[in-house]
Amino acid sequence: MADQLDLAPDSQKDENRLDKENRLKPGFVRRVLASLEDGVEESTYDLVEPLHPADIADLFELIDNENRPALAEAITDLLGADVLSELNDYVREDIIEFLPAEQVAELAGQLETDDAVAIIEDLDAADQQAVLEELEPEDRAAIEDALSYPEESAGRLMQRDLVAVPQHMTVGQLIDYLREHADLTTEFWEIFVVDPGHHPVGTCQLSWIMRTPRDVELGDVMKREQTLIPTDMDQEEVALRFQKYALISAAVVDESGRLVGQITVDDIIHIVQEEAGEDILRLSGAGEGDINQPIVESYSSRVRWLVANLGTAVVASAIIALFGGAIENMVALAVLMPIVASIGGNAGTQTMAVAVRALAMNQLTQSNTARIILRELRVAALNGLTIAVLIGIATALIFANPMLGWVIALAMIINIIIAGLAGVLVPVVLDRLEQDPAVASSVFVTMITDSMGFFAFLGLAVASGMVQL
Amino acid sequence: MADQLDLAPDSQKDENRLDKENRLKPGFVRRVLASLEDGVEESTYDLVEPLHPADIADLFELIDNENRPALAEAITDLLGADVLSELNDYVREDIIEFLPAEQVAELAGQLETDDAVAIIEDLDAADQQAVLEELEPEDRAAIEDALSYPEESAGRLMQRDLVAVPQHMTVGQLIDYLREHADLTTEFWEIFVVDPGHHPVGTCQLSWIMRTPRDVELGDVMKREQTLIPTDMDQEEVALRFQKYALISAAVVDESGRLVGQITVDDIIHIVQEEAGEDILRLSGAGEGDINQPIVESYSSRVRWLVANLGTAVVASAIIALFGGAIENMVALAVLMPIVASIGGNAGTQTMAVAVRALAMNQLTQSNTARIILRELRVAALNGLTIAVLIGIATALIFANPMLGWVIALAMIINIIIAGLAGVLVPVVLDRLEQDPAVASSVFVTMITDSMGFFAFLGLAVASGMVQL
Repeated sequence: MADQLDLAPDSQKDENRLDKENRLKPGFVRRVLASLEDGVEESTYDLVEPLHPADIADLFELIDNENRPALAEAITDLLGADVLSELNDYVREDIIEFLPAEQVAELAGQLETDDAVAIIEDLDAADQQAVLEELEPEDRAAIEDALSYPEESAGRLMQRDLVAVPQHMTVGQLIDYLREHADLTTEFWEIFVVDPGHHPVGTCQLSWIMRTPRDVELGDVMKREQTLIPTDMDQEEVALRFQKYALISAAVVDESGRLVGQITVDDIIHIVQEEAGEDILRLSGAGEGDINQPIVESYSSRVRWLVANLGTAVVASAIIALFGGAIENMVALAVLMPIVASIGGNAGTQTMAVAVRALAMNQLTQSNTARIILRELRVAALNGLTIAVLIGIATALIFANPMLGWVIALAMIINIIIAGLAGVLVPVVLDRLEQDPAVASSVFVTMITDSMGFFAFLGLAVASGMVQL
Repeated sequence: MADQLDLAPDSQKDENRLDKENRLKPGFVRRVLASLEDGVEESTYDLVEPLHPADIADLFELIDNENRPALAEAITDLLGADVLSELNDYVREDIIEFLPAEQVAELAGQLETDDAVAIIEDLDAADQQAVLEELEPEDRAAIEDALSYPEESAGRLMQRDLVAVPQHMTVGQLIDYLREHADLTTEFWEIFVVDPGHHPVGTCQLSWIMRTPRDVELGDVMKREQTLIPTDMDQEEVALRFQKYALISAAVVDESGRLVGQITVDDIIHIVQEEAGEDILRLSGAGEGDINQPIVESYSSRVRWLVANLGTAVVASAIIALFGGAIENMVALAVLMPIVASIGGNAGTQTMAVAVRALAMNQLTQSNTARIILRELRVAALNGLTIAVLIGIATALIFANPMLGWVIALAMIINIIIAGLAGVLVPVVLDRLEQDPAVASSVFVTMITDSMGFFAFLGLAVASGMVQL
């Protein structure tokens, strides 16, 4: 691997700074911290200067909160808009607080609207106002317009700079137009063709245009089928369209269908990463799960989840309490009961993870719900039988009590099948109720598998006549 | 929302087929199934014909296994390469088994190498051979070459069709060259500039070229800094580079640094989705977690996980067994002990999810591990205190036993702090040992929080003198 990477022209100088997985080396980070401590700003600057903006952003994230202002001061020149837009939200807020509003405004002015909005939307109202006032009127209008759309909507996400031309324009005229208008954006991968009312009628990939003779009209090269994104579409939905139709860019239209912006795939890739990664954090109740989040915020989102789980654990305990007499008469029940609950919980979590992913990716819809439930029940039955045989035989032998073996085996089958059913049904029902299945599913599923695990095992023990209540 | 969507020129006809989240409506799927049952192939064809290839792929996924061959037969003309490449792997295998090798070869020949490889790599050896033999020699060589690289590597992922030109070529010459060579790919967003040895020296976005006068040399417009991808780089690593540097396409180089292919962002977006979604499935032991996977495969990957968890549950049981005497003397211990273990497990899972995500996104590296461990310990201490107060007071009141309240409160703090520590340390250590932290972390963390939960609670109960062993 190292061999091939050396061939990259810029990697030779990078090898002291980046490891083979392209992360900043701990030794390099330590050198930067040491030079910050020495207080010689030039030496810090020289160290950081060769880094790519994305790596400078990583550097800020890797060092301690307290060292960030000093680093920002030492490398002010390098702290460009491209670094800011790559920074983690929390770390960016930290740094922006130290920068004067004019500098933030200057940085925001250099960015595409969407990236500028990402920086400004997280500021508190007063800072936001201060930065907006420093902006050029045109940039300011664009950013204020973007901020008027709801968070995580296409309107926030889109950039207003795009190339829109009429249908009767020829390829030659388009190329001349692009060459003459130096103020146009360079961030475009497709040309949007619009009618006189500025409604999109088609798109042209740049590669098609470059391969077409000058005298051909765009209307004859363009693709008429387009995916139009309304400004109020949620970003997760936008990302699903990009994936489904393999888009590079898409036109954003307002309520009257006029072209108002474009969304490009480089912004979508972050959203796909975020949304797919969010489910794991939500399912486990870890809130945003950002390691840069202030401790108190992490605490408050996580403790709420633990309190909810405390509630479900108390329900399970209440069921155990019903069988207190049986446990007193046969303490083996107390030893074995957590096994039934725990394996049921794991089986439920497996099915739930599968269902939550399938829902998020639009693979589990009303059309196939019944089939998928049946499928999961079959897998659960196989799992239940396997685990039941193992634990049943082991219990019968270890406790020299065949009846106890039968009881735990049967309880295990019951609980794993219930877990499989709950694992699909809970997320599906939450989804139908327009709730995010990733957020609430696991509280319900755990409550069901814990309670049913204890109830089935202790209940069967009493019902078998093996032990008195 | 419905209002805006109506403005899309193609959505008017779509509204009977797609719901507002762009999924096929259950009613439409039922109509297709009904027409398949009637056996009139034309009516099925007419229903399906207006669908986008990505929606035809969805239709195959939504209907039952047994109906897929009939649908494939009814719409043979529509079953193009673009449908196949959008299909879920398992469903595609199902369908390809019914198609004659020549038809599969014809479909594969229409695709870019990377998509053709995706279709062919999943076939068993005999089918693969049959399809390869039917391919045009050129396509066959390209696909065989791709198959020679390891699965999930850049070599598999890349397409061989690209535009590579020398540095001294002018913009005008490039445009003429593109116009004259009709056989060149249209799937490109950047031009690769190479030296005489075919080593990449720079890239040009098409938009830059279109805005530059005809007589300028490409060497003067191109960007020299590039991210070069070696053929053996893992696809997850490739996806991280695309994200970090906001790439649209990237050059793939062989061991001697020669340009051999390109990777474009539309292929990366699927990988980002897959890799980010995989973690949730791995953490919960759900294997691939694909709802289209054959039941026996799902069973075999999930049951292994449940057996591993059975092992950890038995360890926890063994600890309870040590305190059998105490439980016999005070059955309240059996009622309360699952609460301590369960909340500890949840707290551990939260931290673990955060750590696994941060590791996957290169945010948690050697440089900040110590800081993050300290951070998680602080959050754990706050969580532990909060839950301890709640459960301690409730227990003291309900059981009218203040000492029992103190014991459970203290046990809870201990277990939540241990959970926080284990939640970071286990994934970090697995990562250092080059193991996937998402796969094995949760078995270890659960074992630690279960065992420590029971041990701390029952041990403290005995140590407090409240109950005899």
